[in-house]
Amino acid sequence: MSADDRRLARVALTWLAEPGTRSVFALVERIGPVAALDLLLSGEAPERALRAAVAARGVSGDARAVAAAALARGERLGARLVTPEDDEWPAQVRDLRRLALSGATRRVDVETDPPLCFWVRGAWPLGEALARSVAVVGARAATPYGAHVATELGYGLADREWTVVSGGAFGIDAAAHRGALTAGGRTVAVLACGVDRPYPMGNAALFDRIAETGLLVSEWIPGAEPLRPRFLIRNRVIAAATSGTVLVEAAARSGATQTLNRALGLHRPAMVVPGPVTSAMSVGGHEVLRDRPEARLVASVAHVLEEVGRIGYDLAPPARAPERPRDRLDEEATQVLEALPRRRTLDLESVAARAGVDLRTAMRKLSMLEELAMVVRRDGGYALAPPPADRT
Amino acid sequence: MSADDRRLARVALTWLAEPGTRSVFALVERIGPVAALDLLLSGEAPERALRAAVAARGVSGDARAVAAAALARGERLGARLVTPEDDEWPAQVRDLRRLALSGATRRVDVETDPPLCFWVRGAWPLGEALARSVAVVGARAATPYGAHVATELGYGLADREWTVVSGGAFGIDAAAHRGALTAGGRTVAVLACGVDRPYPMGNAALFDRIAETGLLVSEWIPGAEPLRPRFLIRNRVIAAATSGTVLVEAAARSGATQTLNRALGLHRPAMVVPGPVTSAMSVGGHEVLRDRPEARLVASVAHVLEEVGRIGYDLAPPARAPERPRDRLDEEATQVLEALPRRRTLDLESVAARAGVDLRTAMRKLSMLEELAMVVRRDGGYALAPPPADRT
Repeated sequence: MSADDRRLARVALTWLAEPGTRSVFALVERIGPVAALDLLLSGEAPERALRAAVAARGVSGDARAVAAAALARGERLGARLVTPEDDEWPAQVRDLRRLALSGATRRVDVETDPPLCFWVRGAWPLGEALARSVAVVGARAATPYGAHVATELGYGLADREWTVVSGGAFGIDAAAHRGALTAGGRTVAVLACGVDRPYPMGNAALFDRIAETGLLVSEWIPGAEPLRPRFLIRNRVIAAATSGTVLVEAAARSGATQTLNRALGLHRPAMVVPGPVTSAMSVGGHEVLRDRPEARLVASVAHVLEEVGRIGYDLAPPARAPERPRDRLDEEATQVLEALPRRRTLDLESVAARAGVDLRTAMRKLSMLEELAMVVRRDGGYALAPPPADRT
Repeated sequence: MSADDRRLARVALTWLAEPGTRSVFALVERIGPVAALDLLLSGEAPERALRAAVAARGVSGDARAVAAAALARGERLGARLVTPEDDEWPAQVRDLRRLALSGATRRVDVETDPPLCFWVRGAWPLGEALARSVAVVGARAATPYGAHVATELGYGLADREWTVVSGGAFGIDAAAHRGALTAGGRTVAVLACGVDRPYPMGNAALFDRIAETGLLVSEWIPGAEPLRPRFLIRNRVIAAATSGTVLVEAAARSGATQTLNRALGLHRPAMVVPGPVTSAMSVGGHEVLRDRPEARLVASVAHVLEEVGRIGYDLAPPARAPERPRDRLDEEATQVLEALPRRRTLDLESVAARAGVDLRTAMRKLSMLEELAMVVRRDGGYALAPPPADRT
């Protein structure tokens, strides 16, 4: 079974059943994507609902043929498939396995397992783009106040070299992307449709700018339509791919508050920008702040960074994106890496002291990090390697 | 020693040392106001700082003569003295004994003991006015947004028969009073100067309207000036006299946030109305919401009532103001009283069931409450007595 077979199977599976479907993810985990696809297509899916869904889908086409066509189409328009077997896979989305939304009854709130694959437009490696990222989400019908705040947040986060992640909608999403782009930063738009036909059309120019330096990302094959439930399915990815989610404006119980609920369910920092109590667009955020003590009020970029920059936080992103995903490092190597300052060099003793490890361990881990091109020796000391973008 | 001696001594003591001084309050508790005054005037105050303060004050007049003149002046202009020996004393201010502000170093943050007396202008009994009251505080330099919200809160609280309590300042204070008056409600202004010369002059017409139906209250003798520290000394009373404090707008670390800190220190509901993060006048409130998890975000009158109306809350006000202070009732009598609905009658069994006491206890407590004119028998059942205002 080749890697290509596995990739094709992941695409076909995502087409057969909406991303997030728990029984499909579990099956892939147990027997791999190729066998899982075979099983589903043979009509022997473990669950009745899944068998029915697969059968219904089968009427409109052959899953393998659809997947092969999607891969060809993706190649033609410069969209690549990224799977968990690729280096650039963002490992943190696996946390979705642990997501349980309280009182969930709707399909979109229950079927929230990790993605099987991503379609990506843009040159930046996906995992690196998301390693140090903050989601900024909110209402389409944003007020001028909300749009202003989202723009400022996008700008400030990008200015501090954080990736801004959002959907592609009008209002808060677009304002956050624009702010980041204005700062010369890179942003990631996670879409609920194919990356070749980003929705809404009115943001077409914005999508083009995003794809130039940042990324357009989707779980759905090129050409896929932005069906209504897909926005909520997509929201779990925005929450899980980032180090924290900021809600800028939202009506009561709206889609944007759902993204924040997913961040809360993942125990990621969930932040809310308050607003005038006289504004309907602030009701959703204020509700979350009243109902969920874990949600934090933020009023500035500094407040956001305080939340997402916290050390010791579950799945915390590295201080800067390493060339290889940091989750490959063991704990001591991570500590050593985090002990290195951004601009200066440190001698071995200082590294060991800051990392809280003994000299031998520090030396061993530094050698390994040097080997991985994450650390360089300079002026008789150790320093963080410059980020890939700086290497000419 | 007559009651008049004790009253005069309380006034003289408040003149000799600023209200809240812990050593003075402790002395009055131990040996009574008359002996405490004698001790202070004899130069034998227990603390060096207090001896110095009393000596310094002594230069500008004779404490007993000043107090006697103040009582005469008060009588002339219709301001009465209220002391803990009076029926209308608001017993809840005694909680100030337990107030400890974390990290307090300034005199106004340390010397926060209960008042020795109040000067009151207005016909309403003080304890009754404050039994069901909410403080609405905030910045002098309020924005139109803040003034709007304070007016709405004042209106809504008064409309639901809660007393609005605030200072007398421009901005939020005035807006809250105006809102309550517009609703036909009664408000209480707690001043940092004599009740005969409410500050600022620009609010003179407002103060007259407040005194007509509500109350002007101060710890300082008629004629006293609004010295700067007195605003903070006064703020402890606003927090302690009410069932909860709402902060509408405040700059960072301003006087209004200090009132909220005192409410927090007293474990009373401390509420903050959020605002645009782009407004300097919202910074203080947002800071409190970020730093103090006990502080609650409120966006409406309903949210405020949810906080202050909580049953089981320490020193909770009665559902409506009884003729006698409710703190004279034992726990079972309070439960029985709270079990009675506002407009209907209940039979004995239902009262007992709702109060969670046995029939015998219910009957005994109901008889006592009837004796106290807090409960009436009607249509073969029991009902809350109508409030004093309704009795013609």
